[in-house]
Amino acid sequence: MKLYGLEVAVDTARVMATLEEMAVDYHLIPIDPEAGETKLPTYLSINPFGQIPALQDAHLTLFGSRAISKYIARKHKRMSKDLIRESNPEEEAMVEVWMEVEAEQYEPVISALINYVIEVGYFGKVEDEQVMAKKVGDLEKVLDVYEERLGKSKYLAGDFFSLADLHHLPQTHRLMASPRCALLINSRPKVRAWWEDLLSRPACKKVTETMDACAIAWKEKKKKNNNNES
Amino acid sequence: MKLYGLEVAVDTARVMATLEEMAVDYHLIPIDPEAGETKLPTYLSINPFGQIPALQDAHLTLFGSRAISKYIARKHKRMSKDLIRESNPEEEAMVEVWMEVEAEQYEPVISALINYVIEVGYFGKVEDEQVMAKKVGDLEKVLDVYEERLGKSKYLAGDFFSLADLHHLPQTHRLMASPRCALLINSRPKVRAWWEDLLSRPACKKVTETMDACAIAWKEKKKKNNNNES
Repeated sequence: MKLYGLEVAVDTARVMATLEEMAVDYHLIPIDPEAGETKLPTYLSINPFGQIPALQDAHLTLFGSRAISKYIARKHKRMSKDLIRESNPEEEAMVEVWMEVEAEQYEPVISALINYVIEVGYFGKVEDEQVMAKKVGDLEKVLDVYEERLGKSKYLAGDFFSLADLHHLPQTHRLMASPRCALLINSRPKVRAWWEDLLSRPACKKVTETMDACAIAWKEKKKKNNNNES
Repeated sequence: MKLYGLEVAVDTARVMATLEEMAVDYHLIPIDPEAGETKLPTYLSINPFGQIPALQDAHLTLFGSRAISKYIARKHKRMSKDLIRESNPEEEAMVEVWMEVEAEQYEPVISALINYVIEVGYFGKVEDEQVMAKKVGDLEKVLDVYEERLGKSKYLAGDFFSLADLHHLPQTHRLMASPRCALLINSRPKVRAWWEDLLSRPACKKVTETMDACAIAWKEKKKKNNNNES
């Protein structure tokens, strides 16, 4: 399988986590949106929306991190590793519910918060306390539902680890890099235990370490580019 | 099956379209967000995020319009009606890709545009030409990709009608209610033919007619409430 994207990017890392969890060999082809590579005709023929990630598996071309992830989990499903629960329609439905929650509720509020924290922390934007409080509050509302849910079952879709949990990995890892944001997770015992469980998985450990290493290299490169420009 | 929501709401109508398409009997229980009904403890015990729609099927409770829709399509799948294509992993993957496109690319730009058009048309907001042009431009970029895609296959996921197409019904129907917005669809021959094909399905016709009838009743009710308040 050929994965197009950047290891430092959340959506690419989501697919990497599924590839690692399912123990699938893959080859990463770096595509850098900031260098305009997603808008080149060659890449647009792979993903016409000009976004990362995309996946090629023989003649099949897919895009959208969650659709790709589901394809990998289905294709490489085995008795000992079924992240979608196709054999149990009710469990499968709950996996779908919590995958949709991740995409529609969790990811948007985390992204909004992380982006604001980065703007303030790295790009020197003056923090507006009200704006920050609103973004923190939006995430807290979602996390309160998670805390209640994880008090009833060990994982989001039930008492089994699923793709619904795994899809949360990359953005939660980025959130935890900010001590202030990490407190939102750590102050909720059930969410914290769920996150620590997730992180303890070898596949998740590998992907978050790769994200961190690439983030350092990425910052170095940006610094160098900025110095060259000035 | 018990469906909680409002026939006039796009996300509820998305589930109704799947129920009608799969010829499943259901009972709609009206839940009105504007009347605060989604924040009542009884409803929060069904959907802790306090949003419509939700579905109850015996002891199973689901929320999130797309997760519900997939559950219905899977449960009632038959040889003559398979909207998910589980028997063909590559077709199934393409259905997932275009369902994700609908949720992540199509729906957000359509919602932003419709909401702005309603603010201007119904609530008397002064139109900012630049804001409108940006929203129209965002949708045009997405529709250009659709036009190209629908030049290669009759439907979004391939030469077969699927849930990926059906999920587009309610928000496209609302978009078409504005002549100015309808032009964005009608000026693209492939997108227009796809939309007309979708609308010609008896299930889609029934749901859009219900949406229209309920929208009229809804506006009457709001008008009456406003008159009572003033």
